[in-house]
Amino acid sequence: MTGNESPVPGSGGFMDLALEEARAAAARGEVPVGAVLVRGGEILAADGNRTLELSDPTAHAEILVMRRAAATLGSQRLPDCDLYVTLEPCPMCAAAISFARIRRLYFGASDPKGGAVENGVRFYSQPTCHHAPEVYSGLAERDAADLLRGFFRDRRG
Amino acid sequence: MTGNESPVPGSGGFMDLALEEARAAAARGEVPVGAVLVRGGEILAADGNRTLELSDPTAHAEILVMRRAAATLGSQRLPDCDLYVTLEPCPMCAAAISFARIRRLYFGASDPKGGAVENGVRFYSQPTCHHAPEVYSGLAERDAADLLRGFFRDRRG
Repeated sequence: MTGNESPVPGSGGFMDLALEEARAAAARGEVPVGAVLVRGGEILAADGNRTLELSDPTAHAEILVMRRAAATLGSQRLPDCDLYVTLEPCPMCAAAISFARIRRLYFGASDPKGGAVENGVRFYSQPTCHHAPEVYSGLAERDAADLLRGFFRDRRG
Repeated sequence: MTGNESPVPGSGGFMDLALEEARAAAARGEVPVGAVLVRGGEILAADGNRTLELSDPTAHAEILVMRRAAATLGSQRLPDCDLYVTLEPCPMCAAAISFARIRRLYFGASDPKGGAVENGVRFYSQPTCHHAPEVYSGLAERDAADLLRGFFRDRRG
């Protein structure tokens, strides 16, 4: 996607934009994960990981877009919003998604080592989870996974 | 503790300060949880919940003090730091504590409904947790729990 095209409304277009954010994160030397927050077809925020740049252990892509959208809307809750993210959220992000009352979560690659939705603590299936989004996984999974694999291979190389 | 006294170095004094932050949060209408981040006997940050004030679902006391300390130190990791918090951390905060490489976690009241350390997902015992702090629970437990009970009783009233 080039800079002056709008993503096609629908999950494919928004996930393409999340992948663009993941690529931009990789170019900054950050773990390549990107996220887009959408309400009623409108993009409220799009960003990638910035933990190194911001010296902030919480600056995962999902947290950054939720914080920005919540500040814009003036509410800690985002009940009509959908989140697109290239990687399965970790426990920090999975819980924040729950607290923000996100309606739908779309994610790309599964993360057996650090995920908390379909892997690990499977937070949304736990009795201590008080709101679970609808979850759709596997969108653009290969692109998202390839990006992560390439990033870690280059760092090892 | 009054404003111009330093807390006694040691866990009791720091937890007293965390309780002061929890009381200040209650006075702002926020869920009364407070946290203090300490390195080498020096307080790097102290704060209470500000999710309403900041319109930020991630603005739990623990997250706020870790973000501030990490920004101050210019690193997303806080390996020599200890965190004092009045309530058992939720999954979001428990995972952020792990990512920040916090050395020791001291908490007050147990949280069967939302905690993720001794309750719920028990994140630090999971294979998807890659750093666990040393955990000390039950410090000033009664004061911390009384504060929360009083707050929710008043809100229902």
